[in-house]
Amino acid sequence: MEKVKVELKENSYEILIGENLLEDVAKFTTLPQFTKKVLIVTDENIFNIYGEKLRKIFSNYDTNFEMEIIPAGETSKSLAEAERIYTCAIESNLDRKSIIVAVGGGVVGDLTGFVAATYMRGVNFVQVPTTLLSQVDSSVGGKTAVNHKLGKNLIGAFYQPKAVFIDVSTLKTLPEREIKAGLGEVVKYGIISDADFFSYLEKNIEGILSRNVEVLKKIIKRACEIKAEVVSRDEKESGLRRILNFGHTIAHAIEEQTGYTKYAHGEAVAIGMIGAAYISQFLNYVDSEKVLRLKNLIESFGMYTHCEGCSVEGVYKLLFHDKKTVAGKINWVLMKDFGSVEITDEVPEKVIKMALEKIIQDNRGG
Amino acid sequence: MEKVKVELKENSYEILIGENLLEDVAKFTTLPQFTKKVLIVTDENIFNIYGEKLRKIFSNYDTNFEMEIIPAGETSKSLAEAERIYTCAIESNLDRKSIIVAVGGGVVGDLTGFVAATYMRGVNFVQVPTTLLSQVDSSVGGKTAVNHKLGKNLIGAFYQPKAVFIDVSTLKTLPEREIKAGLGEVVKYGIISDADFFSYLEKNIEGILSRNVEVLKKIIKRACEIKAEVVSRDEKESGLRRILNFGHTIAHAIEEQTGYTKYAHGEAVAIGMIGAAYISQFLNYVDSEKVLRLKNLIESFGMYTHCEGCSVEGVYKLLFHDKKTVAGKINWVLMKDFGSVEITDEVPEKVIKMALEKIIQDNRGG
Repeated sequence: MEKVKVELKENSYEILIGENLLEDVAKFTTLPQFTKKVLIVTDENIFNIYGEKLRKIFSNYDTNFEMEIIPAGETSKSLAEAERIYTCAIESNLDRKSIIVAVGGGVVGDLTGFVAATYMRGVNFVQVPTTLLSQVDSSVGGKTAVNHKLGKNLIGAFYQPKAVFIDVSTLKTLPEREIKAGLGEVVKYGIISDADFFSYLEKNIEGILSRNVEVLKKIIKRACEIKAEVVSRDEKESGLRRILNFGHTIAHAIEEQTGYTKYAHGEAVAIGMIGAAYISQFLNYVDSEKVLRLKNLIESFGMYTHCEGCSVEGVYKLLFHDKKTVAGKINWVLMKDFGSVEITDEVPEKVIKMALEKIIQDNRGG
Repeated sequence: MEKVKVELKENSYEILIGENLLEDVAKFTTLPQFTKKVLIVTDENIFNIYGEKLRKIFSNYDTNFEMEIIPAGETSKSLAEAERIYTCAIESNLDRKSIIVAVGGGVVGDLTGFVAATYMRGVNFVQVPTTLLSQVDSSVGGKTAVNHKLGKNLIGAFYQPKAVFIDVSTLKTLPEREIKAGLGEVVKYGIISDADFFSYLEKNIEGILSRNVEVLKKIIKRACEIKAEVVSRDEKESGLRRILNFGHTIAHAIEEQTGYTKYAHGEAVAIGMIGAAYISQFLNYVDSEKVLRLKNLIESFGMYTHCEGCSVEGVYKLLFHDKKTVAGKINWVLMKDFGSVEITDEVPEKVIKMALEKIIQDNRGG
């Protein structure tokens, strides 16, 4: 079992990466500091695959557990769904030293984390991310959230789990498209922090797409390490942490304009990274050859490199809705090289729109 | 202007106590670290008294402000009302460096604080408590919350304000009953931490009830100092902070059994303190003479010393609903002397019920 420590003083925790870890999760909940009352939250899809197994494993331990199943999909990230889980927690007599365990992808993790952060002003939280995206992204950093009808993730809290268990075996049953969605964030870590990692990805496209367990463990571990380092230095996103946002400003606008249904978050991030790379190129931060390498890698993973159903004007306007937009200024994370980015709020409207045209209208042409 | 510093490392803030402070609040929101977008949340009652004044004062400063008015009363402490404020915040384009200002009593402060804690994962928050209870209690400590249909304050967060402005002039218009409700918590500070303060209260009943500004400032400042010291040493309520709960375990049960309508929180706390004092007496922590002094002081303030509409069995059962009840054990805060309490989870059912009988059935007899 591999370990990545996330250093956050009294909020520090470990990410454990391996195969068949559900047993370890159950064991963890019996530690003496917890009151042996566990609420497991998962979605229908995960329940169909792991529900019986979870029940069987937890039954072998001296712990009272309840399972709450939410509908699969982004619409579950709502205050209404959070309220249902609060009710379940209260009815199960969960107290302040009980544990809430999230088993699932980003939606389950974000929603459950928000409930854990706010139920009785915070109870213990354990994450078992089951998608590549949630394993390399939301399992590190303590961002929890639900959506508001006027925007995504607008309601939330920074709240750290007590532990994260990344069970790589869960990726075996993951739909192809969800693997790809996770690769967007994986590529991001190469851009923002580690040129060697970017090269490793270029050389291991085959191994990644065929879900070679050792390759997957390696990229997940490295992704978690990079994110953990960034988050340790800036827990509440006041500075450095913003680099994790590479590609996200445009991605959020694309997701919003396409109603959050056409593109998975990771798919939008891949397109957004190409957009941010074009802005970087137009401002002479980076040469066109490097932008092309990024685009090629994304294409090799079979991900979209441009978007449909969006307009330049529409996406441009929505950029200003982003949470990171402060006083009407967008903080752009721009690429300087592989492994190196810079933040600036000085990008002319014209440059942004030129870049948006490249990802919206180029129909996969060069 | 008096100042009390609440020491919480990077979350430290100041409580400013004085008269006619609304001007200072407006000035504070123009500090350079904020983005000059302010959402003021208040309730109908406060708006009727201070709405025009607030508007006039804020208009003189270089700040964009919106006012959101919530219905007065405990029912506003709901996720539904929080959602309305989120909507208002989004529509007013509040960003992460904007400020949300709560002007009102505990309901306004708790609800608005919860919104500030969770809007975009936390924005700046300023409190202007306008009731005695909120000035001496909820303005220190960062507890924010909304109610769930199955229990009070079950959804919330620990979230510290950037500043608290206690404008003692707001107490002039406060209904008599609300002054009394605040005095319950004031008396509590004498019990848990400061025998001299308890004596000061006994000697200044007249001055307090006639709302002598100097006396009020003095008791508010001392109450804030005591609470600030306790909270500084235990922000997240893992140990010492529990002493603030003196009288509250029974109070919460009384409030729940009477449907949160019959007794104001501070009134229930006064009764709950007498109940806790009786438990202390029955377990020989304290002699009956001291319990009587506590009861007499509460009576001198014109507050209830027993409750109607409750049953011993009913209240007893509801004690186990409390957030502080962990693994079915109630952490009782018991009185040892004026200025001294002790926490124990070993109180026999029989003793609890004997004490409950004293506050439920004694009809104000000795």
